Amino acid sequence: MAYFALGVDLGGTNLRIAAVSESGEIVDVISTATDVKRGRDVVISEMTEAIQTLAGRLKAHTLTGVGIGVPGIIDMSTGMLRKSPNLPGWEEYPVREEIERRLGSRVVLENDANAAALGELWMGAGKGAQDLCMFTLGTGVGGGIVLNGQIWRGMTGMAGELGHTPADPNGHPCGCGSRGCVEQYASATAVKRLAMEAVASGKAPELAAALKRDGELSSKAVFELAKRGDGAAQKVFDTVGESLGISIAAAINTLNLPIYVVGGGVSAAWDAFSPKMFETVKQRSFIYAATGPESGRRNPTVIRRAQLGSDAGILGAARLPMLAK
Amino acid sequence: MAYFALGVDLGGTNLRIAAVSESGEIVDVISTATDVKRGRDVVISEMTEAIQTLAGRLKAHTLTGVGIGVPGIIDMSTGMLRKSPNLPGWEEYPVREEIERRLGSRVVLENDANAAALGELWMGAGKGAQDLCMFTLGTGVGGGIVLNGQIWRGMTGMAGELGHTPADPNGHPCGCGSRGCVEQYASATAVKRLAMEAVASGKAPELAAALKRDGELSSKAVFELAKRGDGAAQKVFDTVGESLGISIAAAINTLNLPIYVVGGGVSAAWDAFSPKMFETVKQRSFIYAATGPESGRRNPTVIRRAQLGSDAGILGAARLPMLAK
Repeated sequence: MAYFALGVDLGGTNLRIAAVSESGEIVDVISTATDVKRGRDVVISEMTEAIQTLAGRLKAHTLTGVGIGVPGIIDMSTGMLRKSPNLPGWEEYPVREEIERRLGSRVVLENDANAAALGELWMGAGKGAQDLCMFTLGTGVGGGIVLNGQIWRGMTGMAGELGHTPADPNGHPCGCGSRGCVEQYASATAVKRLAMEAVASGKAPELAAALKRDGELSSKAVFELAKRGDGAAQKVFDTVGESLGISIAAAINTLNLPIYVVGGGVSAAWDAFSPKMFETVKQRSFIYAATGPESGRRNPTVIRRAQLGSDAGILGAARLPMLAK
Repeated sequence: MAYFALGVDLGGTNLRIAAVSESGEIVDVISTATDVKRGRDVVISEMTEAIQTLAGRLKAHTLTGVGIGVPGIIDMSTGMLRKSPNLPGWEEYPVREEIERRLGSRVVLENDANAAALGELWMGAGKGAQDLCMFTLGTGVGGGIVLNGQIWRGMTGMAGELGHTPADPNGHPCGCGSRGCVEQYASATAVKRLAMEAVASGKAPELAAALKRDGELSSKAVFELAKRGDGAAQKVFDTVGESLGISIAAAINTLNLPIYVVGGGVSAAWDAFSPKMFETVKQRSFIYAATGPESGRRNPTVIRRAQLGSDAGILGAARLPMLAK
């Protein structure tokens, strides 16, 4: 390894920094808890120190650059965060500039879901492809679009907000100001809300028992019940699958890409939601019907699970300075 | 003028062929009625003859190539039409190859809505821009996406089918197999259906009177009533505006482009539907709220009417061989 890049995944609760070779191998990692409540300046200090520590360990090699995936909307023209509910106090602050000043080297800042999409294209579910669209089902629903091997950022770096495409325009209010965004039906937050609604309806005894036992309903607990055949839990994931299917169908009809990837924590429940998702996409996208696996095409349009888990973000972030070279 | 290209707009009822200079000037035109009922081979013969006639008139100049906009889904890898309800009998037929054979020159075949989007970018509502998204409200709703100055075709040339993005996923069945596509609420066909539904409800006396007088309800007649303050007619265009707003908001959240253009016959009713459209987009796209004209940005995201009318398609079609050079 002669060259390497550092990929940073700055989450709301964890900070992971990886040194990545040009062939996509993670050669060293630092993970720390990020207590965002301690404030922006503390987090930025800890992050830059960790970056310097990791770079120091690899000083026999050449650092290509640093890429940082951030959970927020980045205005690429200014390097500032426009909207970042998980990083309070970071908005309208020159994040990129400040980190560059402290590190003394160039930094590429990117939305975390965009970085994950690039990571999956490079080393995961989209390996070998040039174009891909990814939905990340986490606390919210993130999205990332890669066209011709590069993240499609749009005019101001805000493109790929697929979590805010409509699954049910008259549905549940969304934090973005709209209603019925897919984020309201396919995120971990949505799975919990849908399960709580089922409990409140009085028709979900197993979910009610799990709630009583655990004190809360996690996406994982709902999935466990669905796996054991509980109808109410399965219904929650049918809603996840149908909503996601509506948004994926719209993405296919808009972009006609070869690969659509579903990642993030909720994607662990793939077996529970994907049958309804595939059924919905087949019905709602005539392009998928004409070009999907059942069309008999040699290179069909495919929808598949992400392969890299939480490594997608750090790999994609590390890839950014390599592509910018 | 040393070089020129021929742009062809092959509609369901009209054929227009224009000779276009490299600076976007239409220097000569042939228009004929295309009776598609006379069959594919007759139409192709008439078209190739008209192309040869026009090329002959300009033989002192050099022909760069021929671009043809076709109302259908084209599989770019084969040059065949996959879906073309307005051109019965043209599906699964090697259209491009056959026309090339008859003309003895290279032909670029393109979906008509894609060609119109490229035309508006080149000489109309998107002049000077590199990226644009266009909705064409005609018999159906077509769409075209231009990225970095080129039509975004996707994997198989089917990208930009924005008419089949969801305005109301549980709504009116769509010919594409889905439900509630924006085409079901913002096309000329939809305006007629919505107006007929209003008449059937018994609460639209003015629309009922117009229907009785004219024997049918055209999009134009409904617009005339809306302009004169008829509530039922205005309600039809509120539905057009809201549905279109939902789809434009989704396009903005997905692509984050600088310009969204609305063209096609129904766009003549811009004054009737655009207030509700803008209101909807502002509410449903936080990216538009952050970057639109009210954001104070120097280069805001804009949504505007198409400027070229039916010339958009022939200009865009003529542009295709120029870009392919």
